[in-house]
Amino acid sequence: MKVPNKLYLGEEKLPTQWYNLRADMPEKPAPLVNPATGAPATLQDLTPVFCDELAKQELDDNTRYVDIPGSILDFYRMYRPSPLVRAYSLEKLLDTPAKIYYKYEGNNTSGSHKLNSAVAQAYYAKAQGLTHLTTETGAGQWGTALAMACGYYGVDLTVYMVKVSAEQKPHRKALMETYNAKVVPSPSDTTDVGRAILAEHPGTGGSLGCAISEAVEVAVKTPGSRYVLGSVLNQVVLHQSIIGEECKIAMDMLEEYPDVVIGCAGGGSNLGGLIGAYMRDRLTGKATPRFIAVEPASCPSLTRGRYAYDYCDTGRITPMAKMYTLGCGFIPAANHAGGLRYHGMSPILSKLYHDGFIDEARSYEQTKVFEAATLFARGEGLLPAPESAHAIRAAIDEAVRCKETGEAKTILFGLTGTGFFDMSAYSLYNSGQMTDYVPTDAELAQGFASLPSMK
Amino acid sequence: MKVPNKLYLGEEKLPTQWYNLRADMPEKPAPLVNPATGAPATLQDLTPVFCDELAKQELDDNTRYVDIPGSILDFYRMYRPSPLVRAYSLEKLLDTPAKIYYKYEGNNTSGSHKLNSAVAQAYYAKAQGLTHLTTETGAGQWGTALAMACGYYGVDLTVYMVKVSAEQKPHRKALMETYNAKVVPSPSDTTDVGRAILAEHPGTGGSLGCAISEAVEVAVKTPGSRYVLGSVLNQVVLHQSIIGEECKIAMDMLEEYPDVVIGCAGGGSNLGGLIGAYMRDRLTGKATPRFIAVEPASCPSLTRGRYAYDYCDTGRITPMAKMYTLGCGFIPAANHAGGLRYHGMSPILSKLYHDGFIDEARSYEQTKVFEAATLFARGEGLLPAPESAHAIRAAIDEAVRCKETGEAKTILFGLTGTGFFDMSAYSLYNSGQMTDYVPTDAELAQGFASLPSMK
Repeated sequence: MKVPNKLYLGEEKLPTQWYNLRADMPEKPAPLVNPATGAPATLQDLTPVFCDELAKQELDDNTRYVDIPGSILDFYRMYRPSPLVRAYSLEKLLDTPAKIYYKYEGNNTSGSHKLNSAVAQAYYAKAQGLTHLTTETGAGQWGTALAMACGYYGVDLTVYMVKVSAEQKPHRKALMETYNAKVVPSPSDTTDVGRAILAEHPGTGGSLGCAISEAVEVAVKTPGSRYVLGSVLNQVVLHQSIIGEECKIAMDMLEEYPDVVIGCAGGGSNLGGLIGAYMRDRLTGKATPRFIAVEPASCPSLTRGRYAYDYCDTGRITPMAKMYTLGCGFIPAANHAGGLRYHGMSPILSKLYHDGFIDEARSYEQTKVFEAATLFARGEGLLPAPESAHAIRAAIDEAVRCKETGEAKTILFGLTGTGFFDMSAYSLYNSGQMTDYVPTDAELAQGFASLPSMK
Repeated sequence: MKVPNKLYLGEEKLPTQWYNLRADMPEKPAPLVNPATGAPATLQDLTPVFCDELAKQELDDNTRYVDIPGSILDFYRMYRPSPLVRAYSLEKLLDTPAKIYYKYEGNNTSGSHKLNSAVAQAYYAKAQGLTHLTTETGAGQWGTALAMACGYYGVDLTVYMVKVSAEQKPHRKALMETYNAKVVPSPSDTTDVGRAILAEHPGTGGSLGCAISEAVEVAVKTPGSRYVLGSVLNQVVLHQSIIGEECKIAMDMLEEYPDVVIGCAGGGSNLGGLIGAYMRDRLTGKATPRFIAVEPASCPSLTRGRYAYDYCDTGRITPMAKMYTLGCGFIPAANHAGGLRYHGMSPILSKLYHDGFIDEARSYEQTKVFEAATLFARGEGLLPAPESAHAIRAAIDEAVRCKETGEAKTILFGLTGTGFFDMSAYSLYNSGQMTDYVPTDAELAQGFASLPSMK
């Protein structure tokens, strides 16, 4: 089959099951732990916070495939399958023998892959008879995605948005409100934890960790309400597996197999989803594609973090997860890839990296990332999100190496979303005013000091 | 064939010819006129302003199909064919027996259909050996599209952007700059006409007409430079015919035929492109679909304008076109569908409307348009541009009428783009602060007084 510029699978090829990566892992990720008891978290520990079905998915390490409910498939069909694109123009610009493919998740109004899990979580909430959800959002992708899903299912939504993002991105806020969500800049005076953080750090611009703490508090205290989260969790990696499943079907149709699979990594939702179907091949001994995780140098959880139990939030009210982390007290520097500013990493991906199944993690400073984003935009005509541009940077570097060695590798990367809401950052880059920031060892040590001691 | 939510034609089905509507019109549109002589404009009149090939296309009323150059097809394949979507969710919300389809042109970084002509115009400039283009932009869709195309072909670009838009939409400016365009708020002190307008109206926020005058002046005075325009012109309607051609192929595959075709109309680029293939059926007696043009009540060229010769720009330096117009001196009120704020209408569409082939023109006030946009966004999950939402409003009204009469009509409308850069307008609407404006007869009379008297 001649490889087209972009392959849109027909809707009849939309996968009808999510793939649970944990089922094929030789060693399972370490369990969530109840900080009060030090014991593995149970369903009873989780259901006050999460919807029942989602709590089950969170703890289920063994079911290999999970049927996607019909209503979720109906919503998926409004924007999925997403295209697999051959980056012919970029290949030409780089004069590389490599073949570059990307799976593009930005063709929906939320502008990113986050919608894949948002729809699932809103559906399960509705099915359980809940009337209200809370969540946090940083850059706004997750909040927008969840607002769309809740708008569709008629579930009320309160979004705690990292204050500095809410101020930098008023348009993201307006977008969520268009879908009927209530947006509260965090930290706020609407919660105990918010008031405490404000008292300690009056001028703070907030962080994802703070916003999570506020959203969880409100969910637990409000009848008919639960908390939902767009990354890090096992359930999210499960829902995002749709990306990799579609990708593999499309590449199989083209008789292509990636030598290397590259994804940006913040909390791990995109990377976990993208690599799923190919990691299955690797875990079951069918193939040995190479996996690369890419993160910002300003928030280097995989490349400079510790593999340890930690809280998922700054306020220390969530269960603890064993993951690569910079410490729940680490507050990342302002960075224009807001979606990657999180202190930890998905426990599944952390375990895969720790056990050598993810081959490499690398980090880039943001000017190098925007350089790649601009080159890509001019060649491929598509403006990438700064988060996605981390993967582009790595893909370009791999393709350039292929030019040097003469290898015609097949490179696959995840293009998670569009940069429409990141034009302030592009402006800074265009005018040469963008700066880089790499935390010092002393700053990292401060973060590590916030790690909880296990009982 | 079961109708999917969205039909993406394979790239092998991408039309390879544009359709020239004029070839099938029983009476041709009135010719452009050279204002200095009062005689029909010749190739020699046009080539100082336009690229040679585009000037030829402008004047060619007879060639029915025009081969699309291979390089343009290569670019088209990066984002086309665009999807034909069945609005199942909207149908359900309206509880209508009507079938609603829309052709969606927002799946590219420019966010609109404008890219279809931008690519063509940048290509012909490059092929002619030109090094620089100028243009104007209002809301920014056209400027962005042309910036992408010029970035791809390596042609320098200067965009005169209506000052009020440049101030309201700094992110649009940043987006164009990312693709290497130079953006100048208009009126500016970089041109004679700009300086004259500034002298007469010191505080003016500018208009499309002013920006056109500035861009034309610079193109004519700069060696190796030409002017390009994103709407109104015959050549643009030709390039945009790709929308209707694809649409007809897709609907034919589904064995569907629209009873009514609806498009928003500013200068006419979208409406002309969308209806082309179906208008061919009507002009050649094969079918009688009904056509509806929708415009803002604040800038009602078809519904309240005059069919007369007028300048295409405020500065009166372009050739004159016979069209429905509010007068080149008419300055439309601020309105959140910037792409529809133009005093005139494509001469082709004007003639079709005058001769009864476009059945109806209607106008809506903007709060009614945003009401439709919000309903659509929550149901279909897609945030429309305010321009496109004019067509949505009309499609909803048609579908509601079908519910009343019990008719199961097939409605097709053009969804020209996304509303990502219009969040300030959505914010206003969300907070109940959006107001409507309809020009008085006296205000229209002032505009008509600016119409040139023909020699």
